[in-house]
Amino acid sequence: MDYAQIFASAIDRLHAEGRYRVFIDILRNKGNYPNARCFAGHNGPKPITVWCSNDYLAMGQHEAVIAAMEEALHDVGAGSGGTRNIGGNTHYHVDLEAELADLHGKEAALLFTSGYISNEATLSTLGKILPGCIIFSDELNHASMIAGIRTSGCEKQIFRHNDLAHLEELLAAADPEAPKLIAFESVYSMDGDVAPIAAICDLADRYNALTYLDEVHAVGMYGARGGGISERDGVAHRLTIIEGTLGKAFGVMGGYIAADRNIVDVIRSYAPGFIFTTSLSPVLVAGALASVRHLKASSVEREGQQAAAAKLKAIFREAGLPVMASTTHIVPLMVGDPVKAKKISDILLAEYGVYVQPINFPTVPRGTERLRFTPGPSHDEAMMHELASALTEIWDRLEMRMAA
Amino acid sequence: MDYAQIFASAIDRLHAEGRYRVFIDILRNKGNYPNARCFAGHNGPKPITVWCSNDYLAMGQHEAVIAAMEEALHDVGAGSGGTRNIGGNTHYHVDLEAELADLHGKEAALLFTSGYISNEATLSTLGKILPGCIIFSDELNHASMIAGIRTSGCEKQIFRHNDLAHLEELLAAADPEAPKLIAFESVYSMDGDVAPIAAICDLADRYNALTYLDEVHAVGMYGARGGGISERDGVAHRLTIIEGTLGKAFGVMGGYIAADRNIVDVIRSYAPGFIFTTSLSPVLVAGALASVRHLKASSVEREGQQAAAAKLKAIFREAGLPVMASTTHIVPLMVGDPVKAKKISDILLAEYGVYVQPINFPTVPRGTERLRFTPGPSHDEAMMHELASALTEIWDRLEMRMAA
Ligand SMILES: Cc1ncc(COP(=O)(O)O)c(C=O)c1O
Ligand SMILES: Cc1ncc(COP(=O)(O)O)c(C=O)c1O
Repeated sequence: MDYAQIFASAIDRLHAEGRYRVFIDILRNKGNYPNARCFAGHNGPKPITVWCSNDYLAMGQHEAVIAAMEEALHDVGAGSGGTRNIGGNTHYHVDLEAELADLHGKEAALLFTSGYISNEATLSTLGKILPGCIIFSDELNHASMIAGIRTSGCEKQIFRHNDLAHLEELLAAADPEAPKLIAFESVYSMDGDVAPIAAICDLADRYNALTYLDEVHAVGMYGARGGGISERDGVAHRLTIIEGTLGKAFGVMGGYIAADRNIVDVIRSYAPGFIFTTSLSPVLVAGALASVRHLKASSVEREGQQAAAAKLKAIFREAGLPVMASTTHIVPLMVGDPVKAKKISDILLAEYGVYVQPINFPTVPRGTERLRFTPGPSHDEAMMHELASALTEIWDRLEMRMAA
Repeated sequence: MDYAQIFASAIDRLHAEGRYRVFIDILRNKGNYPNARCFAGHNGPKPITVWCSNDYLAMGQHEAVIAAMEEALHDVGAGSGGTRNIGGNTHYHVDLEAELADLHGKEAALLFTSGYISNEATLSTLGKILPGCIIFSDELNHASMIAGIRTSGCEKQIFRHNDLAHLEELLAAADPEAPKLIAFESVYSMDGDVAPIAAICDLADRYNALTYLDEVHAVGMYGARGGGISERDGVAHRLTIIEGTLGKAFGVMGGYIAADRNIVDVIRSYAPGFIFTTSLSPVLVAGALASVRHLKASSVEREGQQAAAAKLKAIFREAGLPVMASTTHIVPLMVGDPVKAKKISDILLAEYGVYVQPINFPTVPRGTERLRFTPGPSHDEAMMHELASALTEIWDRLEMRMAA
């Protein structure tokens, strides 16, 4: 048994496939987003423009959020010091859960340390509470949902991405007496397309299935109060469980679910990933509370983001760059090769001070490697034109195909 | 399929067993630990003394930690805005990983959003990278290790708690060619006993097994620089992987592993729980960095904690209270019944302003329900005497047995 050899060859495989990941080492400049400083491989910090952040609305830089965190820091200190059950349940947690329940029009909500663990813990626990449950899962569901479904031990049926006919076929073929759960996302973050939520709820009604919707890439950004696509489409009340993150549009960190009181109580009482871990720092919770409240009342950020995304797509299209079809704020450019995607990203950083991370397997399927841009309210048109001409130059230099 | 009925009966089971959990809603008073305010069920906040925090050394209240967090908040903002690979790798993360690698004398370290997910992600990924691996797991291992081992899909062999003879028996009976991993904790947090690390490493050498040590309840508190029991015992270099948390003695939030460069690189590259989640907020990372650095240089907090624990054990023993055998900073009192444990805790809170959470199943085995006190450097002797007489009065009132 040569352990060192096994570990070394696991790393070699990544290099061989051109998908060994190098993390770019940055610090954002508060109040000056998307401006940041980049460290590794340079003499001292170099100024860059960030084009791939999931702090979509720059709420992580918002005065109200910073002020709330500073206040909590001085009022109660750094960490919570315990699990939710043992000393780690602060008043901030209680308030934020009420705020999130209200955001989604649900009776209750439950905080987790991340969106990842909220998916993992909730899906795995639901599956265990409902014996014989069959989980119907969109083929592009996020890794955290896949992890939860696997741990649930339930039978899993994968339906083709956003394919209602296929989902119905699978539902119709399943035992009518078995508990059923349909798990899917609203905005798929690597393609930027959106699920037909109402139609999926119709199927759920017809086949007596529960629904689980991941709104991680939509909360804060869609709906009049930032309740996500389910709010925009007026269908939040039809979903059994809505899951979201505090780490993307809300700009902080953490995850949650919202549902009716009993379901939340079941997850609270039975999910190991909720029970056996130090609760979110009250500093983060205070910041998230300020952020959720702000975005409930203000639509300026959402409108700025939509305008920026539309503008960037138009500029890319005009420049002949291969923008992928996206109906949301996400602007992906198809590359289709991991080595080239990394190369373009490296040139952008080194020569143009533009930071956009290449997206490769396992985040997207092999052969669909891409660059993924997330313009926000503070990316202006001049930046976009500069970016498009940098990309055109590089596309040319690497002899890559422009859009058809 | 009546879903509502299934969820309701899952909750009813908890009530019937007397282990339905009610979270006490508190805010600590920064700079005045263990003083805090309690909300739920009172008219306005009521002052309490916290006896069950895992912010063992009150580092979550330490000036250096608060100052570092405030600085990061103003320098870079609230959240990281991305996964480690996509925009969420800040300079703070890089620095803290170097600091933690150094703390444990390892080549590298890797941050996770919690100790829970560090165990889950690392153990499950190790098991997948080492085909046919057998994992030898102490029967009292934490839920997060159990979750990781289950997800690994490996064969699991459970050895009796801290029982070297049983562990050796299992190792000797296993296929000599199979990869092997021994997973255990240093300080077991509900009993306060300590694993025989050196002897377990001897067995690992003899049977060519890797070792995985959870030092969550020891980092910051044992060893000359806070490297944990493995530092105190001079055996850190013999362990393959050391895992720890930033949410207990370090007072903030987050988890990590430390190991040799290639192993860390494998987990970094393959573990879904590391890859697919927003990275730790730079504010938390900055605070943890200050905390780790402080406790590397200062032993005052560790000494204060050890003195407080010894004193509280002596006072409890003298009062005839049933203190469990513990060789560490953890002071558990055996109750043996979930309803009584909750009752004592409720009386302490309502009548004495003392907050100590009852510990019940699934955190400890049924029939061993207990109260668990974690005195720290700022719990003084007067508080301890008050606590002991409150407990004696309640023990008497509930007609419970004193220690033999
Ligand atoms: C669809 C989806 N769900 C869940 C998550 C996890 O959320 P978090 O980053 O808060 O862990 C992510 C990304 O990180 C995601 O893209
Ligand atoms: C032994 C042990 N390991 C891991 C954890 C998880 O660490 P964290 O609270 O940072 O998630 C805990 C407690 O929470 C624990 O007691």
